[in-house]
Amino acid sequence: MTAMPPHPLAVSLGDPAGIGPEVIAKCWDSRSEFRLAPFVAIGDPRCIAAVWDGPIEVIDDPAQADSAFDVGLPLFQLNAAQADMPGHPSVAGAHCSLDSLEIAVGLARSGSAAAVVTGPVAKEQLYAIGFQHPGQTEFVAERCGISAGNVAMMLAGPTLRTVPVTTHLPLSEVSGKLTSALIESRGRAALRGLQRNFGIPEPRLAVSGLNPHSGEGGQLGMEEVEIIEPAIAALAAEGWRVSGPHPADTMFHEAARANYDAALCMYHDQALIPIKALHFQDAVNVTLGLPIVRTAPDHGTAFDIAGQDRADPRPMAAAIRMAAESATFRADGL
Amino acid sequence: MTAMPPHPLAVSLGDPAGIGPEVIAKCWDSRSEFRLAPFVAIGDPRCIAAVWDGPIEVIDDPAQADSAFDVGLPLFQLNAAQADMPGHPSVAGAHCSLDSLEIAVGLARSGSAAAVVTGPVAKEQLYAIGFQHPGQTEFVAERCGISAGNVAMMLAGPTLRTVPVTTHLPLSEVSGKLTSALIESRGRAALRGLQRNFGIPEPRLAVSGLNPHSGEGGQLGMEEVEIIEPAIAALAAEGWRVSGPHPADTMFHEAARANYDAALCMYHDQALIPIKALHFQDAVNVTLGLPIVRTAPDHGTAFDIAGQDRADPRPMAAAIRMAAESATFRADGL
Repeated sequence: MTAMPPHPLAVSLGDPAGIGPEVIAKCWDSRSEFRLAPFVAIGDPRCIAAVWDGPIEVIDDPAQADSAFDVGLPLFQLNAAQADMPGHPSVAGAHCSLDSLEIAVGLARSGSAAAVVTGPVAKEQLYAIGFQHPGQTEFVAERCGISAGNVAMMLAGPTLRTVPVTTHLPLSEVSGKLTSALIESRGRAALRGLQRNFGIPEPRLAVSGLNPHSGEGGQLGMEEVEIIEPAIAALAAEGWRVSGPHPADTMFHEAARANYDAALCMYHDQALIPIKALHFQDAVNVTLGLPIVRTAPDHGTAFDIAGQDRADPRPMAAAIRMAAESATFRADGL
Repeated sequence: MTAMPPHPLAVSLGDPAGIGPEVIAKCWDSRSEFRLAPFVAIGDPRCIAAVWDGPIEVIDDPAQADSAFDVGLPLFQLNAAQADMPGHPSVAGAHCSLDSLEIAVGLARSGSAAAVVTGPVAKEQLYAIGFQHPGQTEFVAERCGISAGNVAMMLAGPTLRTVPVTTHLPLSEVSGKLTSALIESRGRAALRGLQRNFGIPEPRLAVSGLNPHSGEGGQLGMEEVEIIEPAIAALAAEGWRVSGPHPADTMFHEAARANYDAALCMYHDQALIPIKALHFQDAVNVTLGLPIVRTAPDHGTAFDIAGQDRADPRPMAAAIRMAAESATFRADGL
């Protein structure tokens, strides 16, 4: 069944020279197979035409997307200063990808779009034009008036959802950055996100340990005792269903996954190894803690294969589908 | 097809109060379904009779195991000073489990047994009777005259094999313990083990990075550049097929796994999260770098469920089957 949110989804194309335009166009091609609700893409039509020969329906109001969606790929047209070749990013393309993101977020903030799905951008290109945020997630948070510390990244697949407490840090710095307050903050964002975006009234959160065997009672590290257990106790005292700390190696097999709705993990690879091992094609990056729904496919611009008709549209389709489902849950008032 | 090594396998029962006796007896029950070659169990028959009412065939020469295997569970009889109740370990049981291990290794060293499969022991119990090794792996290495630094633990499942470079360390100490020499040593043990135990003439080893995104060229940590890349270069210079450092989150999905025969991982959970997420029931712990074949199921004594007929024999069956296959490869001279 296709989730039908009350408004179309806004999909930013990402960097025009990356695989974003290709996978978004392919999603429109396979909209029935992928069970996709109507969406409007936002970007320069030339970067789509360079990699796809299907019909584009330029619209100027999201309300037109529903009917246009049956005829062609609905598009809010932006005009980059130059048309990039696939695989060859430029300053002009970076500006265009940022404008696309800005408009997508604006449409969702205003209520004209039901959710935002973001195509992949090239951070180096964005930094070169003065972009000040670590990534799109923090940009969206700021535009929504939310501190980046109060949002959380979830990787959500069909049988597993994970949320990393820390992300892009050298492994040796993880322990020093972990605090009970940070674990609680990410845990709350995860739990509320499970309610609001996934329609789970009483979500269960499983919290991992940091060390092998969850530290074996302090034999293999003290972070579980000193930092993680107090955070779990604090969340439980607020009435949340929270368990752990669990040894990370035994919490991701099928029987263990049945015991929780999301796993709160202490570092990047602890969260991303299991989700990508199990759900490489259909894990979706979801930003929790925002007033709007925002999802993204969990891959980059892949400049090396752009324009070769080799990009797999399934991750983007999973992101669009999940955005529609989450927007529908929110519209239902859960 | 059942691998048929030239001699029976020696299977130590592990702690008599744990689930070892139960899962080994269940393996004999289902020897056809599990495709198990003849093996001889080593331990006290009372701990088997306490949890299983099948036939036991006491033998005193491994050569009798082949014919006895059709009639009952072949057993080398040890007599513990007392018969433990399941779930209630004792000093007498710890002595018995150590004797069982010693005899199993001796039979394999002498050539009377084709391989050793070890049942789960309780380390605390062994330490209490003066056992000086971190675990069974190091004991077996010493009895074989091999330095513990030159053996490697592999977790081997049907579609993935991983080898951790470091094991039971607090996560914050991993970076400080990593050296190029250690990575090379474990890498060689893994590569030779793939040849000798798995019959792969030109094995491919994929080496993980330590940090998120494999450090992004030094942006997220220097260990890849300073420690891991030189180790990979050194192994490659010896003629081995080695790749990496690979970002750990994108090396364990199905398509990525097709590119290597084993993954060399930098720390415990990096190796154990993916293997247990994918192969919780049939991952086998294999000790590489020994003159003999040694495998074990990747679970503990599980005292909490011992004697309740709840223990799953599939991990032990996988360990017995892999030991037979590896012994057959070695007998074939690969």
